[in-house]
Amino acid sequence: MTKETNYTFDSVRIVMVNTTEPGNIGAAARAMKNMNLSRLYLVNPRGYPSAVATARASGADDVLSQAVVCNSLEEALQGTHLVIGASARQRNIKWRQMDVVSACAEIKQTTGIKGQEVAVVFGTEKFGLTNEELDLCQILMTIPGNPNYFSLNVASAIQVFAYQNYVYNTTTEFEKSENVLASYQELEGFYAHFSQVLEYIEYFEDKRPKALLMRRLRRFFGRAEPEKEEVAIFRGILRNIKPYLK
Amino acid sequence: MTKETNYTFDSVRIVMVNTTEPGNIGAAARAMKNMNLSRLYLVNPRGYPSAVATARASGADDVLSQAVVCNSLEEALQGTHLVIGASARQRNIKWRQMDVVSACAEIKQTTGIKGQEVAVVFGTEKFGLTNEELDLCQILMTIPGNPNYFSLNVASAIQVFAYQNYVYNTTTEFEKSENVLASYQELEGFYAHFSQVLEYIEYFEDKRPKALLMRRLRRFFGRAEPEKEEVAIFRGILRNIKPYLK
Repeated sequence: MTKETNYTFDSVRIVMVNTTEPGNIGAAARAMKNMNLSRLYLVNPRGYPSAVATARASGADDVLSQAVVCNSLEEALQGTHLVIGASARQRNIKWRQMDVVSACAEIKQTTGIKGQEVAVVFGTEKFGLTNEELDLCQILMTIPGNPNYFSLNVASAIQVFAYQNYVYNTTTEFEKSENVLASYQELEGFYAHFSQVLEYIEYFEDKRPKALLMRRLRRFFGRAEPEKEEVAIFRGILRNIKPYLK
Repeated sequence: MTKETNYTFDSVRIVMVNTTEPGNIGAAARAMKNMNLSRLYLVNPRGYPSAVATARASGADDVLSQAVVCNSLEEALQGTHLVIGASARQRNIKWRQMDVVSACAEIKQTTGIKGQEVAVVFGTEKFGLTNEELDLCQILMTIPGNPNYFSLNVASAIQVFAYQNYVYNTTTEFEKSENVLASYQELEGFYAHFSQVLEYIEYFEDKRPKALLMRRLRRFFGRAEPEKEEVAIFRGILRNIKPYLK
């Protein structure tokens, strides 16, 4: 279904700072694993580890069990080359701000060089990141949303970032129908047959001129790009109408 | 921060079918409101209304209180003009499949005509939508993700869609710095000053040729697009070094 165009996912760590609800840590682990991220750093998590976190992780407990618990944000950032702070709103212009897609572009560029790591940092449920924490970030990534209600759950924010990062780094290909399309001749044969039947049942009249109605029917069927078998079905219907006509 | 380019949000309803965990309904309401959606339809929700749902809604209780509870999916789809089913994986090719961005494009086109409504339908936590439910959908929207673990929480799936739909229909503008950039003359003056100081401290030598090092320093400073005030800060530093040099 999806094909990774690079292997940068392992170079991205999610850092959660001073998270107060262990359930959000579990939900974050699940959000990450769904989008191919696995490296979680927890700075002073409250009430963690916890059964609530494990329950909410729902099968992403490997992400939880590998999570690195740190005493400070500085500790969690050791070994990284680009630090991105997440914010639900725009902040003071002293930080370089960008939207999620642009942040993903920076991440891709940075992790494209082997050994370069990126941290994406999320603050507390109530207040997000402090200014002092943002001072450790080179980029402030802003998640857009309803200006009249912005109360994004921290695990939801991680979900949004992780989704965007996944989409940015993969291509999705949908299985194509292998059914053969109707040929020009088959379509024209069908329209001719259809038109004959409509004439026979006296469908066309002054208010329903043949030329106009046939054009509309062609427009409709053409838009659906009929398959060979589908045209055969319609012709079968037309044939089966005949015996019932007076 | 963000500017809506159209007002289609009111024409989109989120339909949750047979949701088993009321907490997910609350989380979905919160996810929706954050991304400017407000119309929630609940088909046979289990254990709803519930205090858990309200707690998880966290301020989006208006979305919950306006939610329409239905006895069937058919009832929830009354009045819509386009029905999109959400799926965490690709299904049989008999449905027209597309990714989230493409689905948002279809939604924008449909809701662009006044009075036309769109439903985006999400199935149960465990199994998603049934084939019979998908038969009521014109489009199957596939949320991409880790092929080895796809267990997206239903509220997280709604969050992902709602985010993508918000981004698709809004433009985000970041406040630009109003600080004046350094002029060509100011930059050149700085480089000359810098080079003088480096010569004075005998930084340049055979292994650190002046031409090469100055080019690298120019490259670095040029990339940062220095502001007038920043160049003034650096020149101040250079001036303050002087008295301390032998």
